Amino acid sequence: MQPIKLVDVYRGENLESSHFGHVAVVNSEGELLYSVGDPHRVTYARSSVKPLQAIPIVETGAADQYEMTDQELSLCCASHSGESQHTDRVLSMLKRVGVEVSSLQCGTHIPHAHDTYKNLISSGKDLTPLYNNCSGKHAGMLITAIHHHETLEDYYLPTHPVQQRIIQVISEVTDYPMEKIKTGVDGCGVPVHALPLERLAYGFARMAHPHSLGSKRAEAVKRITAAMIKHPEMVGGTGRFCTQLMRTAKGRLLGKAGAEAVYLIGDKETGMGIAIKIEDGNGRAVYPAVLETLRQLGMMSQDQLHHLQHHYRPALKNARNEHVGELIPSFTLQKCKSTIVNKK
Amino acid sequence: MQPIKLVDVYRGENLESSHFGHVAVVNSEGELLYSVGDPHRVTYARSSVKPLQAIPIVETGAADQYEMTDQELSLCCASHSGESQHTDRVLSMLKRVGVEVSSLQCGTHIPHAHDTYKNLISSGKDLTPLYNNCSGKHAGMLITAIHHHETLEDYYLPTHPVQQRIIQVISEVTDYPMEKIKTGVDGCGVPVHALPLERLAYGFARMAHPHSLGSKRAEAVKRITAAMIKHPEMVGGTGRFCTQLMRTAKGRLLGKAGAEAVYLIGDKETGMGIAIKIEDGNGRAVYPAVLETLRQLGMMSQDQLHHLQHHYRPALKNARNEHVGELIPSFTLQKCKSTIVNKK
Repeated sequence: MQPIKLVDVYRGENLESSHFGHVAVVNSEGELLYSVGDPHRVTYARSSVKPLQAIPIVETGAADQYEMTDQELSLCCASHSGESQHTDRVLSMLKRVGVEVSSLQCGTHIPHAHDTYKNLISSGKDLTPLYNNCSGKHAGMLITAIHHHETLEDYYLPTHPVQQRIIQVISEVTDYPMEKIKTGVDGCGVPVHALPLERLAYGFARMAHPHSLGSKRAEAVKRITAAMIKHPEMVGGTGRFCTQLMRTAKGRLLGKAGAEAVYLIGDKETGMGIAIKIEDGNGRAVYPAVLETLRQLGMMSQDQLHHLQHHYRPALKNARNEHVGELIPSFTLQKCKSTIVNKK
Repeated sequence: MQPIKLVDVYRGENLESSHFGHVAVVNSEGELLYSVGDPHRVTYARSSVKPLQAIPIVETGAADQYEMTDQELSLCCASHSGESQHTDRVLSMLKRVGVEVSSLQCGTHIPHAHDTYKNLISSGKDLTPLYNNCSGKHAGMLITAIHHHETLEDYYLPTHPVQQRIIQVISEVTDYPMEKIKTGVDGCGVPVHALPLERLAYGFARMAHPHSLGSKRAEAVKRITAAMIKHPEMVGGTGRFCTQLMRTAKGRLLGKAGAEAVYLIGDKETGMGIAIKIEDGNGRAVYPAVLETLRQLGMMSQDQLHHLQHHYRPALKNARNEHVGELIPSFTLQKCKSTIVNKK
């Protein structure tokens, strides 16, 4: 199935570009309720499954042993901006388990928080892995390895127990056979997982309503999602979409972005999960698509949408800071109630 | 007509994202020879028509009056990286006509040359419009206004004679009625022009073979295209695609990128013009699409393609600087010889 146009990019009166993509909406019983494009598109989840990747930190007992706070757990699920509120906490976690920043194998990139970067340069300092948006996730991986007395230098490799636990959790929560999960290497060096979009939606449906996961896993999931919802500023950062979405939803929604324009949502009220992939991988289109999906599903009020208007219909600004255009969502969810993705 | 898949993005073995788009190939007699997707898609040309926007600088006599060098003319057609080779020359042009950098109305953005930016920050300096990739074009606009004793503070507005001359030139060279050209505001504040893709291709066909433009305009066009081809390092900068494409083509091709993934090419050997638009506006896909088009048209040898391999099949690198995937073009040009776009 071909991708469908999800978001138009207007410059003035005229269409300049457009973004095609796919949406899958699934309930926690595994029924595909709505879709656009191909809900079965095999999609690298990238950072959008960080909340699932964090489950072993709690399940192994590492979080308890090292007395991880809710903020720290939220940070383990983050693609953070590299603000001091994030990097200070990652550093604190690393110190607590006695490892150096150089143990983080996530590599370096310019952080989203531009002031952080400017301050580093103007003070003659270099980027370190601490500023990588995935440094919280990597700290969590290291902590779990330490808890299990596993090797630390290769925790990022697919064969390491840390990554084996993660792929098993993803397989179980999405109810998708481990051997069918396709993998590649993520922006931060760890394995990425490709699954049909509807399975990713199902995974987030179960993160929102974890009753079918068994009591131990359900408790771990509840602790993680509660941490993200209580401290959304850890998940993204100042002004970031995930942070503002969860704050605006006031505890109802769990949301996480992934690179190449993936977004996963869990709705704690209905137990629905939503997975969105912009086919071209351009992140600018994913937030308007997310908010339009939430609007059509009645999961966001007009007031809430208005509050997130700058993400719902983001302005195109030019180098003169003029408003020269905007992104506008342009799709309608199609009902497909009869399809059941979770045949048992 | 829907856009067609032009470029696949692989992460490891698996398709992560894909880019759809449109291609039009037209000869200087106005015949549409090949297409992919919708060759008539109305497309903002953005910076890809800078070589046409530069024509009035020569035609008005401003280039002669102010003794503009070939490098400077090339820079007027540029989306430059903000290296000192660019900014020094823009400054020199401005000084020659007695205006300050603050007269440039293009606004500020972080330049492509990251070292330039780092040096500015670490020395406590601010970005100025000089570092805007369009500062050469704006300098050319100012010089033309000065030559004609026109007002300077509003040269960027659509009603100013500078912009009126430009839209008229674009209309004439593309043989498309001025009243049908749709406009918006560019990243640098000046009008942008939306025309059917095949008209943009035709414009570049005539830039390559300008005989039908009349002798005075043909001379101006030859001077501009010769300047770009002789000094491609002015058009982009170190490592940039336009620069490397023109250098590799050894005088055969004229190429210019525009924002939101537009590319225009003129082939001096066959007189063909090529226009490409990636529907989603993501610039990463446009260079593979350009080179694949040139390959299929026999305008690039395997040796030349090999030399440009890093643009033809660009690597996905991660924060650890690992090669984790690549972009691969995936389309076939369709012959459509019978259609004539330039009915007279």
